[in-house]
Amino acid sequence: MCELDAVKILFDVYSKNENKILEEYFEFLRFKSISAEPESRSQVIACSEWLAAYLRDMGLQVSLWPTNGGYPSIFAEWNGAGTDKPTVLIYGHYDVQPVDPIELWESLPFEPNIRCGNVYARGATDNKGQIFYAIQAVKSYLQNQKTLPVNLKFVIDGEEEIGSPGLSRILEEHSVELKADHLLIVDVGIPDINIPSVTLGVRGIVAMTVEMIGSRTDLHSGAFGGIAYNPNHAMIEVLGKLRLADGKVAVPGFYDDVLEVSKEERERMCESVSPDEFFEKYGVYPSGGESCYTPYESNWLRPTLEINGICGGYFGPGSKTVIPAKAVGKISCRLVPNQRPDVIAERVKSFILSNVPKGISCDVTVHAGVGVAARSNPNCKTIECCARAFSEVFNVKAKFILEGASIPIAARLSEISGAELALIGVGLDSDLIHAPNEHFDLNRMRLGFAVISRIIAIFGE
Amino acid sequence: MCELDAVKILFDVYSKNENKILEEYFEFLRFKSISAEPESRSQVIACSEWLAAYLRDMGLQVSLWPTNGGYPSIFAEWNGAGTDKPTVLIYGHYDVQPVDPIELWESLPFEPNIRCGNVYARGATDNKGQIFYAIQAVKSYLQNQKTLPVNLKFVIDGEEEIGSPGLSRILEEHSVELKADHLLIVDVGIPDINIPSVTLGVRGIVAMTVEMIGSRTDLHSGAFGGIAYNPNHAMIEVLGKLRLADGKVAVPGFYDDVLEVSKEERERMCESVSPDEFFEKYGVYPSGGESCYTPYESNWLRPTLEINGICGGYFGPGSKTVIPAKAVGKISCRLVPNQRPDVIAERVKSFILSNVPKGISCDVTVHAGVGVAARSNPNCKTIECCARAFSEVFNVKAKFILEGASIPIAARLSEISGAELALIGVGLDSDLIHAPNEHFDLNRMRLGFAVISRIIAIFGE
Repeated sequence: MCELDAVKILFDVYSKNENKILEEYFEFLRFKSISAEPESRSQVIACSEWLAAYLRDMGLQVSLWPTNGGYPSIFAEWNGAGTDKPTVLIYGHYDVQPVDPIELWESLPFEPNIRCGNVYARGATDNKGQIFYAIQAVKSYLQNQKTLPVNLKFVIDGEEEIGSPGLSRILEEHSVELKADHLLIVDVGIPDINIPSVTLGVRGIVAMTVEMIGSRTDLHSGAFGGIAYNPNHAMIEVLGKLRLADGKVAVPGFYDDVLEVSKEERERMCESVSPDEFFEKYGVYPSGGESCYTPYESNWLRPTLEINGICGGYFGPGSKTVIPAKAVGKISCRLVPNQRPDVIAERVKSFILSNVPKGISCDVTVHAGVGVAARSNPNCKTIECCARAFSEVFNVKAKFILEGASIPIAARLSEISGAELALIGVGLDSDLIHAPNEHFDLNRMRLGFAVISRIIAIFGE
Repeated sequence: MCELDAVKILFDVYSKNENKILEEYFEFLRFKSISAEPESRSQVIACSEWLAAYLRDMGLQVSLWPTNGGYPSIFAEWNGAGTDKPTVLIYGHYDVQPVDPIELWESLPFEPNIRCGNVYARGATDNKGQIFYAIQAVKSYLQNQKTLPVNLKFVIDGEEEIGSPGLSRILEEHSVELKADHLLIVDVGIPDINIPSVTLGVRGIVAMTVEMIGSRTDLHSGAFGGIAYNPNHAMIEVLGKLRLADGKVAVPGFYDDVLEVSKEERERMCESVSPDEFFEKYGVYPSGGESCYTPYESNWLRPTLEINGICGGYFGPGSKTVIPAKAVGKISCRLVPNQRPDVIAERVKSFILSNVPKGISCDVTVHAGVGVAARSNPNCKTIECCARAFSEVFNVKAKFILEGASIPIAARLSEISGAELALIGVGLDSDLIHAPNEHFDLNRMRLGFAVISRIIAIFGE
């Protein structure tokens, strides 16, 4: 049987089961498993239990690994292929991002809804949709062939969206169970529906919260304007110093450890795209990075600092003449190879604290859930097999790309499992992950199923 | 009868009626008359109707002046003193500030609550408490003496907290009804409970909302970090340019029209206070103004620009790695004599728009409800009589002060009514007006009643 026929059969198998798969996918999506929000706790737990039972029903051996106060990681394995066959470890997560601003959603984020072939729901792509087609590929093997051509393990995180603090802590103690040859992190995307690709790296991350406090209580801006130092001004003035006019981060030492990539190498890896083409494609003008790098160079190969949130005082309709007691800022830095999250956090924190004006007190809290950047060797077997599977399913030669986002656990999971890392998935930038109206299309659910099925087959050859 | 005896009688009269006064004051406070919040509309209207009926029951002739879509102004008059007696116009307002941050209130803002002799409620001081003791002074005259020694008019605004846009619009058409000799704006305070004082001026105000828009929807800060220009950065960078390190506003022309006050005059008017004494007194270090002026000089005699609110992206617990679609900033400027709100708004707006980075679009909306600064002549009869009344009631010689806050309607109301202006009241900075846990103490309710009663008597001599 030629490879194209094998892919065709996979599509047929998927189509036959599609109704049931979608029904179960919707069940999965209905859990409000927002790990960042303490009030969603019971829903995150319920989601973990539902998914553990689902994997157990498929014939896998399942454990819920407690993470000491956080949300459990689901570990599931099937070791029936024998010791001469490789072991594949698949990573995904069942937690999702918060939904704010809720008023911009066109349908409720936890009531999945199909419109024009797209499933709209928080987590539709990230990561419930992606991990669910991977699960379906394994389920289909076990149902139809009663076996798999490889030994297979899932580790499904409940805290990825808050930086995987729990799983990071317990990785070491589970190093034996996690041992594998190939690690598939099914949580990334492709540049376009016609461009199959394998991702060779993600950036690291470290996030922090800054509080500027001026007074015990909000003050009247008439009575105290010109007297009290306004925490909004302090926040704006201090955070405003973090970036220079050319887009570089102004924090001393921020770039010290960055792995420099030669111009030739950058040009080879990063497609060049004009600002206008970029705007055409994404609706965003690419003016946010360092002016001496192209958009993809900035996003893939350079660290960044973003202010993810600012808040202080009144921001309802009209005006309220107040000097707020405090202002809050949320900052995250994306890191590239060789940068250490703890070192960068300390440098950013020192810079902020050294710029606080008199009359204001400032707290900087570094959040748990940091991660270093990860990079795959483009010539390893894991990457080669993944690229082959993508090429077969899409019937176009797969590309290699990088990813500007982070999967904080990626590098350490690869190290502890001893497995070569491949970052794969069929997400698109237009899926609006982390944003209102996140969606995933039914066609990519089917493609993802076929890709994972083919990867398993190729690893088992 | 000597003046001290007259004051003593007033206190006795008040004490006899205190229970009923407080009961009715609490009724007044229970209306959620927040003019800034469209969802409170029915409560603002209900409050206006309640107060109109209250004044009518006292024996005044009452009209509700419609303001073309806004909230009515209540006009009430009693002209029985005869044309040889002066006419006193008293201004106050029945609308209140929003209550956010609601979680910091120790009791519900619209369920008035007495603790340690203080009434806690939104509006307890500003302005329901203050206008209510003025109303009680008039009511007491009409009840006990069946007459007043002056002709008396009330104009009670329903939109002061949003800058009196409606009343400003209709002032001219009501110029005949508003004609008066003395205008009392009962909406300010005294520096301390032992320091009676009359306020000779307020600052003007103009407020605006700034929106920085980067994309149609929130973006993932990994996928777009280093590419999209983050609206939070744009907001911070642009607003950060509004003030210089010495506290001066950087907008070109901002100080052009400012009425300069000589050093001698400043020293005469503004008590000098060291930063540490200031901190001791108010719990706030006075580092927010122009470094070359003292705290009271900055607050009374210099214009300021405050960022009353900033908001963009995520600011809940933990972190969310988002580049928000937009960020919002709220700005207000306090103005001194000779500065025109429209001119200042235009200069601030131009400065902001000329600094917006490429990739971001920016809207600046100037709010209705602007006002110029107001100043009284310290030697006019209105001020003299008010100072005498304060001195008698407190049994200490009254001081003259200025006020950093704004009463947007003050200057025009004085002009249109043809009346000399006095800004009076018994508020304290510690009343927390515009903030959580606003409160007013029962003793000052009594003092305010006595002051207004004495002012009416003195005007009628």
